[in-house]
Amino acid sequence: MELTVKELSLRLKAELIPASAGNSGCGLIRSVGPIGAADQTTLTFLADDKHLADLKSSRAGACIVAKAVTGVAMSQLVVKNVNAALIESLEIFAPKLQPPAPGVHKTAVVAPKVKFGTNVSIGPFVFLEDGVEIGDNTAIAAGCKIGQNSRIGENCRIDCNVVIYHNCTIGNSVVIQANSTIGSTGFGYAFIDGAHRLIPHNGVVVIEDFVEIGANCCVDRAKFGETRIGAGTKTDNFVQIAHNVVIGKCCIIVAQVGIAGSAKIGDSVVLAGQVGVSDNIEIGDGAIVGARGCVLKSVGPGMQVLGYPAIEFKEALRVWACTQRLPKLIEQFRKLSAKVDKLEASKDNSKPDVD
Amino acid sequence: MELTVKELSLRLKAELIPASAGNSGCGLIRSVGPIGAADQTTLTFLADDKHLADLKSSRAGACIVAKAVTGVAMSQLVVKNVNAALIESLEIFAPKLQPPAPGVHKTAVVAPKVKFGTNVSIGPFVFLEDGVEIGDNTAIAAGCKIGQNSRIGENCRIDCNVVIYHNCTIGNSVVIQANSTIGSTGFGYAFIDGAHRLIPHNGVVVIEDFVEIGANCCVDRAKFGETRIGAGTKTDNFVQIAHNVVIGKCCIIVAQVGIAGSAKIGDSVVLAGQVGVSDNIEIGDGAIVGARGCVLKSVGPGMQVLGYPAIEFKEALRVWACTQRLPKLIEQFRKLSAKVDKLEASKDNSKPDVD
Amino acid sequence: MELTVKELSLRLKAELIPASAGNSGCGLIRSVGPIGAADQTTLTFLADDKHLADLKSSRAGACIVAKAVTGVAMSQLVVKNVNAALIESLEIFAPKLQPPAPGVHKTAVVAPKVKFGTNVSIGPFVFLEDGVEIGDNTAIAAGCKIGQNSRIGENCRIDCNVVIYHNCTIGNSVVIQANSTIGSTGFGYAFIDGAHRLIPHNGVVVIEDFVEIGANCCVDRAKFGETRIGAGTKTDNFVQIAHNVVIGKCCIIVAQVGIAGSAKIGDSVVLAGQVGVSDNIEIGDGAIVGARGCVLKSVGPGMQVLGYPAIEFKEALRVWACTQRLPKLIEQFRKLSAKVDKLEASKDNSKPDVD
Repeated sequence: MELTVKELSLRLKAELIPASAGNSGCGLIRSVGPIGAADQTTLTFLADDKHLADLKSSRAGACIVAKAVTGVAMSQLVVKNVNAALIESLEIFAPKLQPPAPGVHKTAVVAPKVKFGTNVSIGPFVFLEDGVEIGDNTAIAAGCKIGQNSRIGENCRIDCNVVIYHNCTIGNSVVIQANSTIGSTGFGYAFIDGAHRLIPHNGVVVIEDFVEIGANCCVDRAKFGETRIGAGTKTDNFVQIAHNVVIGKCCIIVAQVGIAGSAKIGDSVVLAGQVGVSDNIEIGDGAIVGARGCVLKSVGPGMQVLGYPAIEFKEALRVWACTQRLPKLIEQFRKLSAKVDKLEASKDNSKPDVD
Repeated sequence: MELTVKELSLRLKAELIPASAGNSGCGLIRSVGPIGAADQTTLTFLADDKHLADLKSSRAGACIVAKAVTGVAMSQLVVKNVNAALIESLEIFAPKLQPPAPGVHKTAVVAPKVKFGTNVSIGPFVFLEDGVEIGDNTAIAAGCKIGQNSRIGENCRIDCNVVIYHNCTIGNSVVIQANSTIGSTGFGYAFIDGAHRLIPHNGVVVIEDFVEIGANCCVDRAKFGETRIGAGTKTDNFVQIAHNVVIGKCCIIVAQVGIAGSAKIGDSVVLAGQVGVSDNIEIGDGAIVGARGCVLKSVGPGMQVLGYPAIEFKEALRVWACTQRLPKLIEQFRKLSAKVDKLEASKDNSKPDVD
Repeated sequence: MELTVKELSLRLKAELIPASAGNSGCGLIRSVGPIGAADQTTLTFLADDKHLADLKSSRAGACIVAKAVTGVAMSQLVVKNVNAALIESLEIFAPKLQPPAPGVHKTAVVAPKVKFGTNVSIGPFVFLEDGVEIGDNTAIAAGCKIGQNSRIGENCRIDCNVVIYHNCTIGNSVVIQANSTIGSTGFGYAFIDGAHRLIPHNGVVVIEDFVEIGANCCVDRAKFGETRIGAGTKTDNFVQIAHNVVIGKCCIIVAQVGIAGSAKIGDSVVLAGQVGVSDNIEIGDGAIVGARGCVLKSVGPGMQVLGYPAIEFKEALRVWACTQRLPKLIEQFRKLSAKVDKLEASKDNSKPDVD
């Protein structure tokens, strides 16, 4: 794919500010790239004014900007929303790939009572058990296994080797990346007569519309009722979601996060990388847990927490700073103690001796 | 499945206390659920007296209790062990699923020298290499790969897409959930002539009877000898067990725990979520490591530890509390210093000036 | 496999010091093992003088040593490099396994435009999409899926159920263990009109020669440009490498490490188990991050850091020690405060009363 800067400006509905007076936007663009790595055929973008200095030295052929900037050598494409234009540009210059082959691959094993919508793609070595339903325009990639009675909605993309156990419900426009597991039995045991006995997990997993699950994730089924991930929530790779967890809408859950059983996560919550959330606690709408935070008690709506254990964000930073000063503080404390001892001694000395 | 409360009481060998004098236990129960989510056709349970208040407002049709309670509207099923009765109830009301199809699926690839017990189930796209042995009543689900000479015992359930490398031994009544890897090469390198050279891993993995392994777990094979997981131990998802680790019996290992090479874990140890255990250390029988604990030195039998680095549990809580008071302490320290300086100054002032 | 100690000494080019004067090195060796577990047919090794006492009580038939030791009962094989001789010995006594079957297994699904080198092995249920290239002597194990245009070099070993997405480049002599995912879409969203919209990931993954990736790992593809792992770098299991991360050569990345987007890791860096690295930061050549370290800002070349947040290693140990003394320090502070109050009071008392 190649487009002139002028053509691109029309596609993006952008105002074109040519690189120079004589330039009519006829330079060719072949890819999208960051400011640093760019050359003349690259379209770059200014998402944040702090990169403005870099842009001025960039060799890119054109740049998406929110408002015209001065002192840059390339053409500018002025748009309302830089991120939206960036996404559109990346889609324009996406590598060309064959779409998933339509229909059911001849090597797939499909039980008798499976229902397909229109225009589905079922890849090689897929195994669909009885009662499975696959919605319109959904692609199940090679090697996926879907258990009895699980239903996948429309416009979904289930990547290679994903395993979905029985009785799970996946909404529309859901993406699940490779090697993830949905609906595994949760970790619930009762200690009876000297052994751990598994508590049967009669419940299910419900994944709502527009959820995207990363690669190598696990979502356990509920003991009873359901484990639920709300519409529009996205998870990175290696995310562990235990039995009976309920996650709200539009959350962002970064890699290696673990959410323990029956925790309740509100809407628009952000859990940064490697966060842990204890069982049975609540995290309110719009709360943010910083990187590696270990949440041991409930977090109110809109709160920002950090640390192990997680406490209010600014307080956590203050505690970290103070902790790092501890060795010095202890030294100062020793000196102060000595000073006080001396004061005490001098006071004692000023008294008449009592034998 | 539906049963009357009366029928259920007989199945659970429970004493039935009807909801009211005129009630003969003829209400129908169709599912098991938590106290909060219950309706008239739901059986619930009182595992802990702290939920008694909730039970009193619950709309469930019946409740499993350890002893009769007053002030509740539903029928009570009095049993010796609430958890055991709960498990039995969940089994009674489990969703009906077809059992794994008997025999070897026609798409499976089975090398010539594979031995099967009676009543095995080998799913689609399973690959069994030479020398593999599968015990009676064991089900290997779709997409599993089992390497040369590995032996799986009786009554096991190996879920979809599990990979078991060569020469591993899996006992009886073992469950391994989807996408787990058993017997991968451990992480052992020697730096020789400017490069990291892999130390060959001639050892094996031994998983004893009644072990249950979660989804997306890894158990590495030993350099020499074996990596071993003791009978009755259960692991949650995403658990990493490195080469030559030896885990005792009946341990509980929660999600995202990592156990480094050659660590030795005793019997009945509990490692809570996201715990890390250093290489070559020992954790004694019955020890507990709290959530996220990072164990850098050996832990004695029965000890409870927590924190990073992990220290004795109550001490860790005390240290956390003190750490969070640090900003205030530093402020107090400043004031105290000023006070002492003033005292010193006033003392100096009371002396004659020395020039 | 069995060899006499004499034969082994020739294979290892070692100087043989017989167990006793009359011993001609005719004892048989059948395996390699640690000092503790050894019997007469076992070859053991002394990698570190701190195990010398154990060696003296060991029952092994022979021992690899860097220089002759006294007071041991077994034959000694004196070599220049104990680790190199250990590796060679482990290769000699490795369990005998059939090599991967040559050619393309009849159940594999291979798109028309796939190119194979000589002597490749493509296992059962492998799916290779159009444009895939597999180099000479490379083995792709059962259940792997390789996306469009991805190229795998020579002498690689891709283990069962690995998923490699489109347009990725894997060098020569690369090992990727089971259930790992290479080239998944990274976690990059822009919040537009009330929803998180995925930023398309047009970039790729490049894995250089001699890289080894553990089981159940994830390497995300880049937004633009590439995610790159440098030659000779090794990762343990469950390692998360986010989009646009660049890792240098010969790094050691232990289990459960997470490296966030666009982080830049130098050459010969060691990231110990469960380490986290923030996005967009740099870790210099030769730096070491200790177990569980959480790196929130860039780390210079050769630095060693530890803790949450990670700080200089020795300082981190000092801070840990001080933190654990905090409860006592606070107690001492209280006493000192009381002492100062008393001093103040006594000073006040020595003044005339002012009413």
